[in-house]
Amino acid sequence: MHMDLVAALDIGGTKIAGALVDGRGRIVLRAQRPTPSREEGDTVMRAVEEVLGELTSSQLWGGVGTVGIGSAGPVDASAGTVSPVNIPGWRGYPLVDRVRAVTGGLPVALVGDGVAMTAAEHWQGAARGHDNALCMVVSTGVGGGLVLGGALHPGPTGNAGHIGHISVDLDGDPCPCGARGCVERIASGPNIARRALEGGWVPGPDGDTSAAAVATAARAGDPVALASFERAAQALAAGIAATATLVEIDIAVIGGGVGKAGDVLFTPLRRALRDYATLSFVRQLTVAPALMGTDAGLVGAAAAALGSSGSSAAVELRPA
Amino acid sequence: MHMDLVAALDIGGTKIAGALVDGRGRIVLRAQRPTPSREEGDTVMRAVEEVLGELTSSQLWGGVGTVGIGSAGPVDASAGTVSPVNIPGWRGYPLVDRVRAVTGGLPVALVGDGVAMTAAEHWQGAARGHDNALCMVVSTGVGGGLVLGGALHPGPTGNAGHIGHISVDLDGDPCPCGARGCVERIASGPNIARRALEGGWVPGPDGDTSAAAVATAARAGDPVALASFERAAQALAAGIAATATLVEIDIAVIGGGVGKAGDVLFTPLRRALRDYATLSFVRQLTVAPALMGTDAGLVGAAAAALGSSGSSAAVELRPA
Repeated sequence: MHMDLVAALDIGGTKIAGALVDGRGRIVLRAQRPTPSREEGDTVMRAVEEVLGELTSSQLWGGVGTVGIGSAGPVDASAGTVSPVNIPGWRGYPLVDRVRAVTGGLPVALVGDGVAMTAAEHWQGAARGHDNALCMVVSTGVGGGLVLGGALHPGPTGNAGHIGHISVDLDGDPCPCGARGCVERIASGPNIARRALEGGWVPGPDGDTSAAAVATAARAGDPVALASFERAAQALAAGIAATATLVEIDIAVIGGGVGKAGDVLFTPLRRALRDYATLSFVRQLTVAPALMGTDAGLVGAAAAALGSSGSSAAVELRPA
Repeated sequence: MHMDLVAALDIGGTKIAGALVDGRGRIVLRAQRPTPSREEGDTVMRAVEEVLGELTSSQLWGGVGTVGIGSAGPVDASAGTVSPVNIPGWRGYPLVDRVRAVTGGLPVALVGDGVAMTAAEHWQGAARGHDNALCMVVSTGVGGGLVLGGALHPGPTGNAGHIGHISVDLDGDPCPCGARGCVERIASGPNIARRALEGGWVPGPDGDTSAAAVATAARAGDPVALASFERAAQALAAGIAATATLVEIDIAVIGGGVGKAGDVLFTPLRRALRDYATLSFVRQLTVAPALMGTDAGLVGAAAAALGSSGSSAAVELRPA
């Protein structure tokens, strides 16, 4: 049997998704469990093992040659451990060893979820054909990943591209990460909603105070809602421009719930990019919505494991 | 004869330096001219040709196998052109073609001056042995370059690492580049001096209002001078932390005149880094003064041409 399948895991604070992915990025088998995120570490691991059990018990398992994991961060790919902010039971948790123990000693690649999403968009999505790209998820948090010189750039620990926690307002509001004025502190969905409410925006009769509801109000012309999206767009533009100025990217791909706001976000974002991406070598920078949807994490974890994104740097921890 | 020498050019707004550099980074022959920076482009080029003439007429020239250029930016390595801010006669100037015409068709590598300095520090200086590093020049302007995964990362156009023009204060003071709150707008020597004077710092009897004089006053305990360096350090820390968070570097090397201020800069810089470099994978980041001195540009141009910095990405434009 050809070993052309990858077992992929996408681990977040809400769900643990698994899949078998073929060499063309198609998902041929799925499994999923809710993340018992408030439980102790080994209980969370049992949910991972249940997902993997559904995969290993499949008759397709014999075709699996490698395992890819995209996990909520921070991760430490060099140590094979994860410490997801939203899963307090996992701190320096040896996820790679545990996964290898139940997958027959196959090589296991670990990257952060922003890096995984980037691998997916580069392989099959909006960053396809771009040798230098930033891909972002703008949602409850803001994450991201980089493609440089045609290859995924996970960095030594698998966390590179963490654009949500660069400061674009050095005297700005304190961020839960400990710094001030981070992109996430200004541009995440909850911060878009918070700023609108603080500015006097009144939610509709359904009481929905999400960023999606703010986007609906902005589309209807509500000036406070528009201003909140414009401020988020300004922070995203400053962060994207900083990334381009530092590493020379030619496209920024934006996914996640806030990315779905459409023109309410992208119109002021493109305008603000002209203000911050000023040097000759970054002026051609474009932004585009992500294309891969909710499977980006699984497809990207597979891409990182396969090196399908051209990556030679994705850390592959083989059995000793 | 072994082709183990590199002809190196370091082109700035004040001087045009040239050298023959051996495979161990030693300068074996030098030439230099002032830059006629207010003259038309071809006049500037004649000064370059005079420098190269001194090199090509040497009996050592037969051992030269390649040419490396580090130039004030912006450059466009993919087009072989330069547009240095301080040399208005050169806009999209075809420097690579012109240099190749007087160097016998040898391959010519072009990078920005920040990238060249980085190649030198990685080859022989403070970033030696570091696979992921940011090197910076903090002087009249603020420039830089990156080493990623053990190799110089010039980017497609040779400008990557341009940390001076990332915004760390998105609502801040307008920068000549067109953006706001850039690292250079806060941390360059002239801005350190300007801020001290605006804050009421009184220069000594010699009337020296340079950043070096502010540093002397800060060392003597002048609170306004100290505050100006602390603000510069804060902006540098935010920029360095952003770089580490985006691409995972483990050392930032700082050269240039302001870098020579010593503890007046480095003590508040290390303190501010703890405020901005907060995520687990960037907390180990260190800062160190540059070691290569004024020859960094020449040695680095040679390194970029040789790939001695491990670079496979340095753009080498061979004759068609």
